[in-house]
Amino acid sequence: MHYSQLSTPALTVDLESLERNLDRMAQYCREHNLGLRPHTKTHKTPELARMQLSRGAIGLTVAKAGEAEVMAGADPAEILVAFPVYGAEKLRRLAELARARRILISLDSEAAARQLSAAATAQGVEFGVLVEFDAGLGRCGLFPGPDCVRLARTIQKLPALRFRGLLTYPGNIWGTDQERKKESQSVATAVARALAAFDEERLPVEIVSAGSTPSASLSHEIPGVTEIRPGTYVYNDLNTHYQGACSLEDCAARVVATVVSIAVPGRAMIDAGSKTLSSDQLRAGPQGGYGLLVEAPDAPLIKLNEEHGYVDTSNSGRHFQVGDTVTIIPNHVCTCVNLHEEIFLLRSGEVVGSWLVAARGKIR
Amino acid sequence: MHYSQLSTPALTVDLESLERNLDRMAQYCREHNLGLRPHTKTHKTPELARMQLSRGAIGLTVAKAGEAEVMAGADPAEILVAFPVYGAEKLRRLAELARARRILISLDSEAAARQLSAAATAQGVEFGVLVEFDAGLGRCGLFPGPDCVRLARTIQKLPALRFRGLLTYPGNIWGTDQERKKESQSVATAVARALAAFDEERLPVEIVSAGSTPSASLSHEIPGVTEIRPGTYVYNDLNTHYQGACSLEDCAARVVATVVSIAVPGRAMIDAGSKTLSSDQLRAGPQGGYGLLVEAPDAPLIKLNEEHGYVDTSNSGRHFQVGDTVTIIPNHVCTCVNLHEEIFLLRSGEVVGSWLVAARGKIR
Repeated sequence: MHYSQLSTPALTVDLESLERNLDRMAQYCREHNLGLRPHTKTHKTPELARMQLSRGAIGLTVAKAGEAEVMAGADPAEILVAFPVYGAEKLRRLAELARARRILISLDSEAAARQLSAAATAQGVEFGVLVEFDAGLGRCGLFPGPDCVRLARTIQKLPALRFRGLLTYPGNIWGTDQERKKESQSVATAVARALAAFDEERLPVEIVSAGSTPSASLSHEIPGVTEIRPGTYVYNDLNTHYQGACSLEDCAARVVATVVSIAVPGRAMIDAGSKTLSSDQLRAGPQGGYGLLVEAPDAPLIKLNEEHGYVDTSNSGRHFQVGDTVTIIPNHVCTCVNLHEEIFLLRSGEVVGSWLVAARGKIR
Repeated sequence: MHYSQLSTPALTVDLESLERNLDRMAQYCREHNLGLRPHTKTHKTPELARMQLSRGAIGLTVAKAGEAEVMAGADPAEILVAFPVYGAEKLRRLAELARARRILISLDSEAAARQLSAAATAQGVEFGVLVEFDAGLGRCGLFPGPDCVRLARTIQKLPALRFRGLLTYPGNIWGTDQERKKESQSVATAVARALAAFDEERLPVEIVSAGSTPSASLSHEIPGVTEIRPGTYVYNDLNTHYQGACSLEDCAARVVATVVSIAVPGRAMIDAGSKTLSSDQLRAGPQGGYGLLVEAPDAPLIKLNEEHGYVDTSNSGRHFQVGDTVTIIPNHVCTCVNLHEEIFLLRSGEVVGSWLVAARGKIR
């Protein structure tokens, strides 16, 4: 079946682009002796996680206990929960997972560490712990320096926890090549500052985890980083493209939609709205718009309601008709994928299978 | 169990507020002799649809075939699909539903009408049809006038379809009381123009369907409207509140979250981000922000990542600690609910049960 025969809206992935994206990141990490621990929040699909592991990923990253439970199905040796989980019920579930495989968690407070220790002790398991520091984004993480060492020492004293290193999320590396390079230098300074504090106290740091998709290719220029956690690179999206970090052809995940109304002059309405694409704004390149219409880049997707996408056809060379199939590259693929139960697999435009987005909606 | 003991993030609804919201809208419609055909896209929950039907709703409204399949579980006499569905697979499923109950669909093109007729004919069922006209929003719908009559005549000639009336979505009635009243007058002009064209051709119009939550209370002032389709009123949200269409106490659905990090000065990070609240912007009242923290209205939720909410604590009187429970009223409850598998039911702060959000993610 050709993808244009799919019942719409439908999320699709071109397997050839996907495999190219996976290979490229795996090769970069091999070349630079960096561990690749991909963040699975983008795809939420164990089948794809297995493809990452078979290409040499050292483990998987998740944000939530529910994601970890699903990703255990891909059988990684270790799962990193890159989120300061707080709450006994979630930690109990993570401790259960730790019976069969290593679980590593990042945190930045003694309160979280104490709760983690109690959960591990209760079930007779051990958690690895990374201390999170802030490299400029201002989200989570201690200021790089003695505070990090102090928390690491506390972790070392708490039962059933093992301090294994540091983690930061360099989300501030964003924008044009030039902007990303500049911010990358300030991240390098923060990493150096964090490591110096540990060096001074002669406390060994096994892991320094960083990396995101926009910052990935700069990771080898940040001394001390041992591994990275990009997520988006598997599918890519407009935000990645407009930062120059991928080509349009590398945008492997696309939403297939149908034109359902052309009654209002200057409009083609499609059956993909915010419950299909997400309302995430474009944060790079030309501002505005909710995705790129591959068939008509001169017809911007200017507004979304829940189930309606508003295409402005007033300056487009294309003549839209009710029933037309269109293909949209989303602004932000991670929030888009999370809205879909299923992703259809394409080779040369033919549907060759589908995956369940098994971890979608796993918010706890 | 008290709601503060829920594993977070968790979507909750206060049943007392919900029942008050349901009663108020039911009473308004009775008083003004308007049919109430609530849009179930807000709650996506058959149990709640039954509460609406038991309070006198004349049927249910959905946007998608998948929502109709789930809502059939609430056993309404009739389901209105207020979306110009195009696609044989979806119409086949709707035709199957039409064996057991009346299905009514709105559309604005001959192409959609012909496909609908073919689907109904193939399965030996009948669809009721409403012709959609545009009352100023510029989304779907023909210009009110002779074009609507022409499409109605085409529908009358097509096999297995029955023309039953008109539909419009008055999404342009939005904003302050004054803004909404003004726009309501222009919607009234459009309705009058549409009805005049049918009157001239002596074509009877049984149904004139309009109404949304912000416009609901003005519906009786639009001559000709026979029924309304509000959705949001069951739970309400910040967008509704800031238009003056409900009080904060009427915001029945709230997200319970936990403070997970206070490491960065001026920040409290919570475990609810865009995959829990949605990225929908505030479109009424004070601009900016992604929801109201009930416990600290002076601490704005300034930014969301997928699983992180950024609370700006720099001007707040509250002292945030890791582990604190907070409660958020979302900007837009419809997109928020769609992200949750389950909604927890509260009475006086105690969890008394939960509903599955059975139609969430039903995009086809």
